Amino acid sequence: MTDYHVFDLGDFTFQHGATLRGAKLAYQTYGTLADDKNNAIVFPTYYSGRHWDNEWLIGEGMALDPSTYFIIVPDMFGNGLSSSPSNTPAPYDRARFPDVTMYDNVRAQHRLVTEQFGIEKLPMVTGWSMGAGQTYQWGVAYPDMVKRIAPFCGSTVTSEHNFVFLEGVKAALTADEAFRGGWYDVQPTKGLRAAGRVYAGWGFSQAFYWQQLYKQLGYSSLEDFLIGFWEGFFLNGLDANNLLTMLWTWQQADVGKTPGFDGDTKAALAAIKAKTLAMPGEKDLYFPPEDEEWASQFIPHGEVRVIPGVWGHFAGGGANPVDIAFIDSALKELLAD
Amino acid sequence: MTDYHVFDLGDFTFQHGATLRGAKLAYQTYGTLADDKNNAIVFPTYYSGRHWDNEWLIGEGMALDPSTYFIIVPDMFGNGLSSSPSNTPAPYDRARFPDVTMYDNVRAQHRLVTEQFGIEKLPMVTGWSMGAGQTYQWGVAYPDMVKRIAPFCGSTVTSEHNFVFLEGVKAALTADEAFRGGWYDVQPTKGLRAAGRVYAGWGFSQAFYWQQLYKQLGYSSLEDFLIGFWEGFFLNGLDANNLLTMLWTWQQADVGKTPGFDGDTKAALAAIKAKTLAMPGEKDLYFPPEDEEWASQFIPHGEVRVIPGVWGHFAGGGANPVDIAFIDSALKELLAD
Repeated sequence: MTDYHVFDLGDFTFQHGATLRGAKLAYQTYGTLADDKNNAIVFPTYYSGRHWDNEWLIGEGMALDPSTYFIIVPDMFGNGLSSSPSNTPAPYDRARFPDVTMYDNVRAQHRLVTEQFGIEKLPMVTGWSMGAGQTYQWGVAYPDMVKRIAPFCGSTVTSEHNFVFLEGVKAALTADEAFRGGWYDVQPTKGLRAAGRVYAGWGFSQAFYWQQLYKQLGYSSLEDFLIGFWEGFFLNGLDANNLLTMLWTWQQADVGKTPGFDGDTKAALAAIKAKTLAMPGEKDLYFPPEDEEWASQFIPHGEVRVIPGVWGHFAGGGANPVDIAFIDSALKELLAD
Repeated sequence: MTDYHVFDLGDFTFQHGATLRGAKLAYQTYGTLADDKNNAIVFPTYYSGRHWDNEWLIGEGMALDPSTYFIIVPDMFGNGLSSSPSNTPAPYDRARFPDVTMYDNVRAQHRLVTEQFGIEKLPMVTGWSMGAGQTYQWGVAYPDMVKRIAPFCGSTVTSEHNFVFLEGVKAALTADEAFRGGWYDVQPTKGLRAAGRVYAGWGFSQAFYWQQLYKQLGYSSLEDFLIGFWEGFFLNGLDANNLLTMLWTWQQADVGKTPGFDGDTKAALAAIKAKTLAMPGEKDLYFPPEDEEWASQFIPHGEVRVIPGVWGHFAGGGANPVDIAFIDSALKELLAD
């Protein structure tokens, strides 16, 4: 898990004004870049995710086949591998880490792709959740570079309801005295566990719990799922400030904030030239299909294909074989086109 | 708001074994009990609600017309008026307050109705949310006494997803150091505010926020709604231990736990003799219509009539005139039958 690359961004000025000296973009690659440099796929990470968490969708015989494609998985700012509150030296460390936008992430990734690899065209960008948000952002910011985008379980602009859901996660995490306004020396584990419990009801659908499908994931009881999966999720090497940095990025996400669009989300969507296949989860509680359907009206070559079933947001999380097959098959179809 | 009645329950033994000496049941009545005592409607309170919070559904020309019916609104244990952690003397005060079941609430209400008023038949029991749960509980525990039940936005058994949602609320509230395991001297306001923010995403639907319908309620922005409505909701005279007592009641709710049914929810539902009109909210995120539809299969005279629209759980909260009209009209129809 430490076998990855780091691209040096130098002095990186974020959209909100801060400049991080010696900013870093961590990434991993799978496969080989073709001589014509036309086989690269960018697959950004999700909230809390690290590049290895994307590997379930990469493999021999799958759409993202490393024997055909050169797959680049860039780590999001704040995920603990790229520049983050937890790994940045003072004075921009911890609670002082800059506000990061979706555009900041994608602009850094664009520099990696072009400067490090000399790539000028991307057959596809894809990603789950906040990775889907970055996927849309690629389509808007670099319309002539990206041929196809396949965002799944994510949106072009964070809806107010989604924002409110995240407020709950944030409030639970920061209610812990041990958080100390971000100046903790040890992780606020009570707050992290509370954030996990708040998240639990949102991540999977009502029907997922009714059917007790967590048992398919190896959990012996509801409480075992809450502790073993959800509290464990937030304690698994995550840092409270890092989570809040990514949460801010998520809450503020809006492709309309891309430079040149002056907050006009619809105009930004209209600028996407890529063939777009959006795949929301049927019962996703915070990125409901309605968000994708709304956006699709304004995207010139946009299609929405709902992932059926009860796994909610985690339909795109790589834990359910049926959903993996659905997504992989759709990506194959898109790439063949 | 202090003009209400208190019924002395004496030594009240709860289903889980504790005995509260001098237990109290607060209540309010509207209208006059008929000489034949056949015009009483019981309308229990909801999570955090006090009897005056039910008054929006009572009035001249409405189904619950005090000129026709004698409407009894009993306050739930833990709501701060009936026996609660906040008003019970030691040793059963605060964190030591007994676990209270739905059946405990309804059994106490049954004593009020029969002992205080000598009522033997109830034309109807109705209620919102946990009030709906108590409504079902009345139908199961006293099938020969209750002619009609009209539970809205509530269930017969708390689903696992609903349980998980409440875990999030609880975790946020108790993450505040000031909660001190329930032995606080001042309210843990940071935790209460956090609980309000967690609740915010659940109370209303995704579409409610998308359409910014909180502006109809007089809130000037999303943040104004989060502070003014949601944080205010949890700070408005509520006590943390009281909230946790009612939350426990909610999480453990299951009509199958009524004595005599040995946990068999379906058998309990089959015992309901009342004509049953269940009204879930179309987009209720924690009491979704599926829960009511499931239960309805086992209730002999059960009908499910979905309240259409985007107000989610708060379709039954009395803030939206269209939803009030829907519920009131359905109650009129039920009472006329």
